[in-house]
Amino acid sequence: MKQIYLDHAASTPMRAEVAEAMISVMTEKYGNASSVHSFGREAKRMVNGARDRLAAALGCRPEELVFTGGGTESDNLALFGTIQAQKSRGKHVITTAIEHHAVLHSCQQLEREGFEVTYLPVDRTGRVHPEQVAEALRPDTVLVSIMYGNNEVGTLQPIEEIGQMIRSKSDGTVFHVDAVQALGAVPISCNELPVDLISFSSHKINGPQGVGALYIRKNLMIEPMLYGGLQEKKRRAGTENMAGIAGFAKAAELAAAGLADRRAHDLKLRSILLSGLERTVGLGNFHLNGNKDYHLPHIVNISFPAMQTETMLMNLDMEGIAVASGSACTSGSLEPSHVLEAMNLPQNLLRSAIRFSFGLGNTSEEMEYTAEKVGTILNRHRKKI
Amino acid sequence: MKQIYLDHAASTPMRAEVAEAMISVMTEKYGNASSVHSFGREAKRMVNGARDRLAAALGCRPEELVFTGGGTESDNLALFGTIQAQKSRGKHVITTAIEHHAVLHSCQQLEREGFEVTYLPVDRTGRVHPEQVAEALRPDTVLVSIMYGNNEVGTLQPIEEIGQMIRSKSDGTVFHVDAVQALGAVPISCNELPVDLISFSSHKINGPQGVGALYIRKNLMIEPMLYGGLQEKKRRAGTENMAGIAGFAKAAELAAAGLADRRAHDLKLRSILLSGLERTVGLGNFHLNGNKDYHLPHIVNISFPAMQTETMLMNLDMEGIAVASGSACTSGSLEPSHVLEAMNLPQNLLRSAIRFSFGLGNTSEEMEYTAEKVGTILNRHRKKI
Repeated sequence: MKQIYLDHAASTPMRAEVAEAMISVMTEKYGNASSVHSFGREAKRMVNGARDRLAAALGCRPEELVFTGGGTESDNLALFGTIQAQKSRGKHVITTAIEHHAVLHSCQQLEREGFEVTYLPVDRTGRVHPEQVAEALRPDTVLVSIMYGNNEVGTLQPIEEIGQMIRSKSDGTVFHVDAVQALGAVPISCNELPVDLISFSSHKINGPQGVGALYIRKNLMIEPMLYGGLQEKKRRAGTENMAGIAGFAKAAELAAAGLADRRAHDLKLRSILLSGLERTVGLGNFHLNGNKDYHLPHIVNISFPAMQTETMLMNLDMEGIAVASGSACTSGSLEPSHVLEAMNLPQNLLRSAIRFSFGLGNTSEEMEYTAEKVGTILNRHRKKI
Repeated sequence: MKQIYLDHAASTPMRAEVAEAMISVMTEKYGNASSVHSFGREAKRMVNGARDRLAAALGCRPEELVFTGGGTESDNLALFGTIQAQKSRGKHVITTAIEHHAVLHSCQQLEREGFEVTYLPVDRTGRVHPEQVAEALRPDTVLVSIMYGNNEVGTLQPIEEIGQMIRSKSDGTVFHVDAVQALGAVPISCNELPVDLISFSSHKINGPQGVGALYIRKNLMIEPMLYGGLQEKKRRAGTENMAGIAGFAKAAELAAAGLADRRAHDLKLRSILLSGLERTVGLGNFHLNGNKDYHLPHIVNISFPAMQTETMLMNLDMEGIAVASGSACTSGSLEPSHVLEAMNLPQNLLRSAIRFSFGLGNTSEEMEYTAEKVGTILNRHRKKI
């Protein structure tokens, strides 16, 4: 059976060039990048070379990047590392109701530790408004954490406006942005953003799982979360994951170089999917969730009110088409999406939402085929009732 | 020039079979192990299969293993996760003066957070005595953390006696063992040890860097360090590192299957190195640090009082021989080893210690060659003076 993978927001296939870069490290290089002998120096050169290339791809200085074990660790380090370093400032944190659980569950832990967290609402399209951030800012606000592009509905946030507003209104409130889902899909240049900390993950951009990075603006103090060796300028202990780092850097380089093409490709697939659905399902029978102007090109969230999410997922899966109900990290749970709830979607849309997310390898034909299959599934269902 | 790698305690070359296992995942499998569609289910099967094989190799149940980003994270999760879960019990922790920095620096952080930490002394051979642990135990002792085998001098600790004593004297004090350096060198069967938590790392046993595991005895409660998705039964958030996990499991299987052979091989290399040094350096001119009866077979720590550590390291490096002064994680620093200091070595031995550590690929000829080169270097040095 044809297999169509439309869940690139959950994880992506590894690019052949990334696998090659990793294999050459895995089979040829060894040693600990902290060792002082020739093997260690070569390992260190490898890690530093990858850091330089990643920094170039992300628009920052190499020393502003800390390698982590993934996007979740980057988010956790940003939050806990900041509040630990800025204790004297206060105990107030601002975030949004639609963050990834790596941020939301960290914020809940902060609440258990005595912090006060403001969860900003979003509008019906999933946008946070800068004025709401401005209103929530207090002299004791240590940290604002807002994602770049949402992983369930793709809505982009006005990060620049929010960052500028924080800098103008506050003296020292740290601004963290989770760009895990946005990297590789929209241009991100760290040093050009009015942002202090930015989280990245490798496996969302056709790189290896188990590696990520946190951009830490020069001179910003954060405390480590992992204690031990002196790696990463004492900001993240643990032996450097050479192959993972090499693969991540290669993936980021390729993503940066191919960004315009990928955007065009994603938007084309999106448009074919949507026009296909108009034809097969009918304009009145599905609803596009998210923001029509500000969105990640590769994520399309659609509700089909005639069929509950789980039923559609199962039917598409039986047709070989992999889509998602929302974040993979919470797939086990039967709770409705916290993102769609925060967007105040009515129950019929909330309970019937499907995330299609595109990437490397997807074709126009696959989109046509998917639209057809969705139509067939809904028709079959209608006849049964 | 011939290159001889005698720093396997810092990091090890990846086995060909491990690289193969990883490459097949990297190039053929993708998807997020938490996704519910066919790609996700296959990813989950892959992770669970690897967990089963790792559990078999480590002598525990699959659900007693949590995959981490490496040995440092395992140690940190063991310590911080325990004290967070057992807050009501008290604020006293016992460890030893010779632990890896992943434990020692975590303990220092605990002290900053208001905990009291007892650092047990060791004898001249690097052994902790169970009676000392018994004396230090208090009703408010939350955790005892003692390493299985030391990474600098190789001394093995009486883990079973200490564990039994803790169980008999205390009701609920958690016992953590850092077995990062011991795994693959001596037999370890988690469920047979009177221990609650055991840290493991993959890259010390010819597996990939960036992945490790923490054994958590059934029914023991620990709090996570990373918050986010529901992975690893809510004990460690973050997308599963499929290729890393597959590689780690393969490395552990091969290490378990080859343990007796490896032990024989390591002991032979050790004996060739030592008898070689007797011949080339002379019995009175070097001193074996550590314990002659209880030691990891692959780590030999030797002081050559005629030459300072850094000079010997540099000279051997110029001959293509990679050895270490101690832990790679602290190589940047010029401080003398905290392990040798705790063993109360006199200054001349403290300042001239070299760690030789063997493993996959090392040969008898390399040991002969190394002994010869050490002799030549010391002779040349003597003549200069």
